[in-house]
Amino acid sequence: MTPPAQKVTPISGFPELLPAERLLELHFLDTVREVFELHGFAPLETRAVEPVERLLGKGGDADKEIYGIRRLAGEDTGRESELGLHFDLTVPFARYVLENAGKLSFPFRRYQVQKVWRGERPQEGRFREFTQADIDVVDVGTLAPHFEAEMPLVIAEAFRRLPVGEFRIQVNNRKVPEGFYLGIGLTDVAGTLRVVDKLAKIGPEKVAAQLVEAGATDEQARLCLALAGIRSEDLSFVDEVRALGVEHPVLDEGLDALAAVIRAGTEQAPGTLVADLSVARGLDYYTGTVYETQVVGNEEWGSVCSGGRYDSLASDGRTTYPGVGISIGLSRLVHLLVTKRGLTASRSTPAAVLVAVVDEDTRARSVAVAAALRARGVPCEVAPSAAKFGKQIRYADRRGIPFVWFPGAGDDDGDQVKDIRSGDQVDADAATWECPAADLRPGVVIPQH
Amino acid sequence: MTPPAQKVTPISGFPELLPAERLLELHFLDTVREVFELHGFAPLETRAVEPVERLLGKGGDADKEIYGIRRLAGEDTGRESELGLHFDLTVPFARYVLENAGKLSFPFRRYQVQKVWRGERPQEGRFREFTQADIDVVDVGTLAPHFEAEMPLVIAEAFRRLPVGEFRIQVNNRKVPEGFYLGIGLTDVAGTLRVVDKLAKIGPEKVAAQLVEAGATDEQARLCLALAGIRSEDLSFVDEVRALGVEHPVLDEGLDALAAVIRAGTEQAPGTLVADLSVARGLDYYTGTVYETQVVGNEEWGSVCSGGRYDSLASDGRTTYPGVGISIGLSRLVHLLVTKRGLTASRSTPAAVLVAVVDEDTRARSVAVAAALRARGVPCEVAPSAAKFGKQIRYADRRGIPFVWFPGAGDDDGDQVKDIRSGDQVDADAATWECPAADLRPGVVIPQH
Repeated sequence: MTPPAQKVTPISGFPELLPAERLLELHFLDTVREVFELHGFAPLETRAVEPVERLLGKGGDADKEIYGIRRLAGEDTGRESELGLHFDLTVPFARYVLENAGKLSFPFRRYQVQKVWRGERPQEGRFREFTQADIDVVDVGTLAPHFEAEMPLVIAEAFRRLPVGEFRIQVNNRKVPEGFYLGIGLTDVAGTLRVVDKLAKIGPEKVAAQLVEAGATDEQARLCLALAGIRSEDLSFVDEVRALGVEHPVLDEGLDALAAVIRAGTEQAPGTLVADLSVARGLDYYTGTVYETQVVGNEEWGSVCSGGRYDSLASDGRTTYPGVGISIGLSRLVHLLVTKRGLTASRSTPAAVLVAVVDEDTRARSVAVAAALRARGVPCEVAPSAAKFGKQIRYADRRGIPFVWFPGAGDDDGDQVKDIRSGDQVDADAATWECPAADLRPGVVIPQH
Repeated sequence: MTPPAQKVTPISGFPELLPAERLLELHFLDTVREVFELHGFAPLETRAVEPVERLLGKGGDADKEIYGIRRLAGEDTGRESELGLHFDLTVPFARYVLENAGKLSFPFRRYQVQKVWRGERPQEGRFREFTQADIDVVDVGTLAPHFEAEMPLVIAEAFRRLPVGEFRIQVNNRKVPEGFYLGIGLTDVAGTLRVVDKLAKIGPEKVAAQLVEAGATDEQARLCLALAGIRSEDLSFVDEVRALGVEHPVLDEGLDALAAVIRAGTEQAPGTLVADLSVARGLDYYTGTVYETQVVGNEEWGSVCSGGRYDSLASDGRTTYPGVGISIGLSRLVHLLVTKRGLTASRSTPAAVLVAVVDEDTRARSVAVAAALRARGVPCEVAPSAAKFGKQIRYADRRGIPFVWFPGAGDDDGDQVKDIRSGDQVDADAATWECPAADLRPGVVIPQH
């Protein structure tokens, strides 16, 4: 029955966590879920696969290379060979909305936390399999603009509860550059955006050169760079744009919409949102507000949470569903915090207590102690063997379990509990002992530099 | 920017839930996780893919047809084409243990709740994508037998907290039939097990006929059926087996081990475990104790939670890792409870309160009320538009949100809150209002017959 010995090697781009790291990731997952639910987003999960045709439908973004799936044992029916793993949670959500529109109540608020897969070349912080945490609001026909302010503020509330340190959510509205470019006579809006989007990577000189190469005048290029250089935490960006002297109705529309989002931010969470007119979100399908999120001091990580508004998240030909959403790159964020900042969990198990076993004949007594502790919400484990107490304590210590419980160690056959960090050992009764609140769940350990 | 209208059709075997159903599934997921963590199992997640060679390694079980994955855009390197989606969580866990053995502390207790994929023919309650919830304990070299009693008792604790009604965990030990068959002179143990395993499906006459066809005498076939007919909630099964007059050292070993599990069950959770000598767990790789779980009154659903002991979960050629584990077929269980028993959640959103908006100019006041409620842990949502109150109340009602909050509806510009089920409307302050505990989270609705 013994299977043959097999070599094991990691698969590039498919990272796995050790238990303490996974406990840290779970803390992130639990926190974002709690905040999403406090804001009335309904949980949703979609299947991992979509027809490849649908996955390819959203423009040929080479960054999102698709994994196709096929039954190895099945005859190729020509149908199953057309399924692929989703590369984000927006495309499946749009399809889900169309499929279930008759059973959903609109505006529909949902959160979705799932794995996604991308066949791109693995590199630092870029994985082929990773978890995203998304919120979206979708409505029928029209979508109220206040949702565009709400999305980043929900994210800010989640991030403030997480050990990510200072962060900044940058907001722009696609209509601002679009109207601005049209106002100065650059009609290839997408092409211009694509060049300006490289600003952080290649610098202003090269951007200007590429714009001129694509047909812009020096003055047009200068104005594009001037626009992209504007950022403000308050509404002053509006005057700065106006000072450039460009007029266009689409620009007015964009500035009004962006001002509304920034105004809500200054009212509800001052210092969280920044109007940043360089944010473009590449070739994505956004049509209005766009978001990116930087961890302050680690801007080189790139955006850890991005999104925006799409006038047409989905359409069945008769009805159009506009939406706005934002997505946390959760695996990536946790991976960066673990590898770059050394974050981890305070222990490698949920257990707060190890109940020692005096000898195998009295294991039932230790099991009863554990049951009493669990009935009061204290996660615990019974020692795997009746080894010497020193060995049982080392078992707890290796896992970071803070307490070891000794049945019958006290007077009159009462129990005792030892805090193995301090060495303090006191009389205790499993029916009444209070585990310190800070020890009940694994905590987050942030190394001090 | 509008994508073309696309037809949407469900994909057979890849079910998706509506929000209220997903809230019910989350209740199950949260409950099993809580119980697993109370018992000190560490959370673990493995990548979705394994080398196909490893997936195929565990015997050619045709029930577990594998989905291969490949990058649609990538040149076929001959390496990526060899990856497949995992069909269970045991094979990846065994690989993870080998890969990380140096970083884990043994015995290692982990739980794992993840999607798995099987390319089998979809049918009622059988999916191609579904969630499993597993616990396992694995050790180095040898594994203490008390873990074999612990596994089903953890599951029983989880099931007692879930709305599954009465259930029964059947336990057997592979060594009992193995030793028994050897004791009566049937040396093809696997072949005999395979035939006896069909008992529930084809009945005793056909089993006897097939055993005889395979070379057994009538008396041997009779004894096999007599053994498979034994079940008891206490230790009386031992005497019943002994009464058949068969002797073999492997039988003795199996009876001792099974008696130890059943004894722990009668001590710690009377009436939960049943020794059932017909349980064989098909062709799986178990070597000792095996488990199956029936929902009483719906035995036709088959086992909703199964597992067992494997003497060699993993091996790297030098070291062997024995383990014992059990796996809840969670999607399947929830699907059956939803479709066969009509279970659902009491609402389709986590929100307990809808904060009404009097007019768009005072939306900020409603947003502030919502923030105050959330700060005290009350999930809520602000009305999407300042529609007539009747329409706002209907918005809440359609989603099952029990309370609607009216800013400024009380005396002196104070607020009021309405329970839309009873129609009661009372003065309330968001800084002090207590949401009834039963309404804070969506509840489970079990139809009465």
